[in-house]
Amino acid sequence: MILKDSEKVKNAAGRWVPKNVNGKAQVPYKGLAKHKPKTRKHGSSGVSCADYPNDGNKLVTSLKEALVKAGLRDGMTISTHHHFRNGDYLANQIFDIAHDLGVKNLMWFPSASFPCHEHLIQYLEDGTIHHIEGSMNGPLGKFTSDGKMKGLGVLRSHGGRYQAVQDGEVQIDIAVIGAGCADSFGNANGLSGPSSTGLLGFALADSQYAEKVIVVTDNMVEFPCYPWQIQGNYVDYTVKIDKLGDPEKIISGTTEITKSPDRLFLAELTARFCEHAGIIKEGFSFQSGAGGTSLAVGEYFREIMKRKGIKARFARGGSNKYLVSMLEEGLVDYILDGQTFDLEGVRSMAENSRHISTSPFTSYNYHGKGNFASLVDVVILGATEIDVNFNANVVTHSDGYLLHGMGGWQNCLFSKTVILPVPLFRDRIPVIVDEVTTLCGPGELIDVVVTERGIAINPGRKDLIKAVKGSGLPVMTIEELKDKAEKICGKPEKPQLDEDIVAVIKWVDGTLLDSVRKIKQ
Amino acid sequence: MILKDSEKVKNAAGRWVPKNVNGKAQVPYKGLAKHKPKTRKHGSSGVSCADYPNDGNKLVTSLKEALVKAGLRDGMTISTHHHFRNGDYLANQIFDIAHDLGVKNLMWFPSASFPCHEHLIQYLEDGTIHHIEGSMNGPLGKFTSDGKMKGLGVLRSHGGRYQAVQDGEVQIDIAVIGAGCADSFGNANGLSGPSSTGLLGFALADSQYAEKVIVVTDNMVEFPCYPWQIQGNYVDYTVKIDKLGDPEKIISGTTEITKSPDRLFLAELTARFCEHAGIIKEGFSFQSGAGGTSLAVGEYFREIMKRKGIKARFARGGSNKYLVSMLEEGLVDYILDGQTFDLEGVRSMAENSRHISTSPFTSYNYHGKGNFASLVDVVILGATEIDVNFNANVVTHSDGYLLHGMGGWQNCLFSKTVILPVPLFRDRIPVIVDEVTTLCGPGELIDVVVTERGIAINPGRKDLIKAVKGSGLPVMTIEELKDKAEKICGKPEKPQLDEDIVAVIKWVDGTLLDSVRKIKQ
Repeated sequence: MILKDSEKVKNAAGRWVPKNVNGKAQVPYKGLAKHKPKTRKHGSSGVSCADYPNDGNKLVTSLKEALVKAGLRDGMTISTHHHFRNGDYLANQIFDIAHDLGVKNLMWFPSASFPCHEHLIQYLEDGTIHHIEGSMNGPLGKFTSDGKMKGLGVLRSHGGRYQAVQDGEVQIDIAVIGAGCADSFGNANGLSGPSSTGLLGFALADSQYAEKVIVVTDNMVEFPCYPWQIQGNYVDYTVKIDKLGDPEKIISGTTEITKSPDRLFLAELTARFCEHAGIIKEGFSFQSGAGGTSLAVGEYFREIMKRKGIKARFARGGSNKYLVSMLEEGLVDYILDGQTFDLEGVRSMAENSRHISTSPFTSYNYHGKGNFASLVDVVILGATEIDVNFNANVVTHSDGYLLHGMGGWQNCLFSKTVILPVPLFRDRIPVIVDEVTTLCGPGELIDVVVTERGIAINPGRKDLIKAVKGSGLPVMTIEELKDKAEKICGKPEKPQLDEDIVAVIKWVDGTLLDSVRKIKQ
Repeated sequence: MILKDSEKVKNAAGRWVPKNVNGKAQVPYKGLAKHKPKTRKHGSSGVSCADYPNDGNKLVTSLKEALVKAGLRDGMTISTHHHFRNGDYLANQIFDIAHDLGVKNLMWFPSASFPCHEHLIQYLEDGTIHHIEGSMNGPLGKFTSDGKMKGLGVLRSHGGRYQAVQDGEVQIDIAVIGAGCADSFGNANGLSGPSSTGLLGFALADSQYAEKVIVVTDNMVEFPCYPWQIQGNYVDYTVKIDKLGDPEKIISGTTEITKSPDRLFLAELTARFCEHAGIIKEGFSFQSGAGGTSLAVGEYFREIMKRKGIKARFARGGSNKYLVSMLEEGLVDYILDGQTFDLEGVRSMAENSRHISTSPFTSYNYHGKGNFASLVDVVILGATEIDVNFNANVVTHSDGYLLHGMGGWQNCLFSKTVILPVPLFRDRIPVIVDEVTTLCGPGELIDVVVTERGIAINPGRKDLIKAVKGSGLPVMTIEELKDKAEKICGKPEKPQLDEDIVAVIKWVDGTLLDSVRKIKQ
C-alpha cells in the first residue's frame, strides 16, 4: 500500500510509519520507555461451566468439527503457535478446512511461520487468508516482500505478541493449540508423545485470551494431564488427530555448533570480551541463541567458567543439548527455557525440576510488572545489519527481502549487556552500514558489536569501554569497523525498494518502530 | 440493615435477598445453570516494565512502605489469603498499619478469616475497616451476627471468590500475599521456609487481578524462586519480615481422624454406601474434607480399595497425612490439592510430582470453561442443617449465629455424587429440619444424607436408589430421618432472628442465594 502524506507519520526514530494498519489506528514509536498503556488489560467474554460438559470431556471428532463449533467464519483471527517449527502439520490443516468451508478473509496470527507454511500461499492468493500478523520466514516473507499479500504484515517480538493479546490490540477469535500431550478436558503440555516440543509457552496468551480455544493432540492421556502448561479451564474443545507434526523437523536443524573457523573465532572473541568485561562471574546469567555461533559462545563460556571455578545462576532462552549438559554438570543452577530446540532439551525439561518452562509472559511481556529479560546479565544475539548508531535489523536481508521474524530478539535487548557477534561481511556485503534498511532495535539498547576484525562498544557504555581497556582486545569505533568492511567489499548498494509498504515492525510496547517496503519488481 | 419491600426481591429459591449490597446492584439467584455472565472478564490497569526496576529487585524496607507506595487510602479493598489459617500474623499487621496511618472505610477481602483475626474487631468498630467480604469464622461471625458490622458481610465459596474477582464484581486495590518462600522479583510459593503452607492457590486471583500486589515473606531466596505459584510478573513490591505466622497454628488442628465411635460408624456407613452404589471402582475419584469424620471416610475407602485391589485416579481437596500415605502406597495416582492441611502435605507437595498444586481457578471457578469439581465421582461434605428438600446450610448454627465460611463446599456440590454424612442430632438438636435457616446449597445438587440411624437418598437420584436396593443399608426417606430425630429430641425451636440483614450468601455464579439475619438481642 502506498501511503499519502496524511496517512503516515515520522516516529521518534525518524522512520515513516502508517497511521493505520489493517484498519486499526496505530501509535508511532515514541522512544524508549515513553509509551505507557492507557487501557485496561483485555478481558475475554464471560463464560459459564453451565455451557461445558460436566464430566469434563470436551472431545469432538475432528478438527473440522471443532472449528465449526467454535463458529469459524469470515474475517476471524485464527492463532497458532510455532513449537512444531518446520515440522508443523496443524496450521496448514486449519486453512485447508477453512478453504473447504468457503470461509474468507481470515487473519492468521501465528507466533512464527516456517517454510512448511508455504502451503498457505494459495490461501493468501484466493482470499481465504487476508493477511498474516506474525513472523514471515522464508517463502511467506518473500510473498509479502513482493507485495502480494492483501493486508499489511505485522511483525512482533514474542513479548510483543503477548503484549498485543493481553492489551486487546489483537483479539483472537479461535486459537488452535497443538500439544504433544493432552487430556480430554484440555489440560496440555509438550513434554511427551511423538510430537513433543518441550514447552508450549508461545500458546499461553492464546489460551488465556482467545474467545474459543481448541487443543489438538496425537497423544491423548487420561485426566489429569500434568503439568498443565495449557490449562483446560481455558479450553473449549479437544481433538485427537493422527499426527501433529514431523518429529525430525520439529527439532530445529540449527542446534549444532558452527564448524566454520571464522565463526568459531567470532564466538571465542565474544566470550573473551565477556571475560575481560567482568561479566562472567559467580552467579551471573546469560542468554545465547540456538544458531551455530551463539552455541559456540556458550561453549567458550563453559571453558571460562570451568577454568575460573564459577557457575551461573541461570541461563535463559531456548534450550539444547549443550545447555542441558551445563545444567547437568552443575555449571548453571537453572535453565529458564522459552523454547526447547532439541530432544535433549525435551528430556531435560521433563526430568529436571531445575529446567524450567517459561513463557513470553514471564520472560518478555513489556506490559507486565517487570519481566525476566532485563534480569539477564548478558545476551548474545544476531543481526542482518547494524548501523553506525548501533541500530540493528534482523528481519530484512541486504537485498531488502523480509525473510525472518524477530522472535525474542527485541525483548532480549533489555538485558544488562547486549552483544551482537556478526561477521564483518556476508557474501562480500558489509554487515555494518550507514543506516539499517529496517529498524528492529534502537541503538541505545545495543552495547557491543563483535566482528572477526574488531569490536565496537556503544559510546554510551563507558563502563564497558573502561573495563576492557588494556585487555588487548581489538576495540575500535563502529565507524572504523564499517570502513574496514568497505575497504574490502566496497560501499554496499542500497536495496531496490518501492514506496509501497508491505509490513510493519512493532516495538515491544505496541508502537510502530518501522515499515517494510516492497521490493522493486 | 432493615430492607423495605422495594429494596428486596424473592429469588428462585424462595429466599428474600437485597437488591443492593454495599452499594452494588445484585442479581438474585435464578436457579441452577440459569445465570450466565454478560460482561467480559475484568482487566486490571495496563502496566509497563518502564515503571519497574530493570534488575527485577522490587524489595522495599517494610510492609508499611509497600502499603504506602501501593497508594493505600480510604475506601480501598484490601485482600489477603488464608493459607496461614489460625497462625496468620500478616492480615492483622496490615490493618494495624492502616489504623496508624489513619486510613478509613477499608473493605477487607480475605479468602477466609480465623479466630486469630478477632484482633480486627477494634478496626471494624473504629471505622478503619468498613466491612468484610469473605468467610467470617468464629469471633468475626459473632460480631456480624450481632449486627455490629457497618456494611453487609458477603460470603462466597472459594470458587465464587475467584469468579467475583475475575468478573470484576470485586476489584481489589491492594493484595497482600504472604509466601513461605519468595524472591525479590515477587515469584513465590509456599513450599519451604518456617511459614510454609504448601500451596498459595487462594491468592492466585488476587495476584492476577489486583491493581497492586505485595508479596511478603520471611524466607527470601535468590531469583528464581521456583515453582512460581505466584508469578513475579504480577507483583509490584516485595517485603521481607521476621515472621509470617505461627507454624503450629498454620497447620490445621482438625486433621486427625475422629475417635468418636458414633462418628466412626457414620464414616463407615458412608463408605459402605459408596461401595454398594458402585462408586468405588477402578480409576474413580473422590474428595473428602479435613474434618474428623471425612478423614475417617477416606480411611474406610482405603480399606475397601485394598480389599478390592483397585486404585483411584485422583483425590481432590485438601491434603493431609492420610491422603499422602494413600498416594505413596499407590492407592491414588494423583492428589489435586487445594489446601495443604499438615506438614506431611507440604512435604509431599514439595517432593512428589503427582501431588499437584491446584487453585480455585482450576478446581472451582464456575465462570470458567469447566472446572475440576464436576469431574469428581464422589464428594463427602458436612452441613450444619439439611432440610427435607435436601437444601443444606453450612454457615449458621441452630441458634442462627454465623460462625463458618463456605470454603469450597458450594463448588463441590457439582461432583457426580454428593454425600453429606451428618449426625442425626447435635446437642439434642436435630440436624434435619423443615427448612434450613440459611440456604447455602440447593437440594437438587445434594444426593445422599447419611446419618448414624439411616440414609436418605435424593428422590432425583433413582440410579443410586436402585443401586443400593437389597444391600441391607438402612435407606429411608429424609422425612423418616427427620421424624426419628424429632421423636428423640422433640421439634427444634427456630432461631430468634431480627428482620435486619447482616450478611448475604452468594451462589457460585455470583447471584444472591440467601440473606443472613441478625440475632435477636
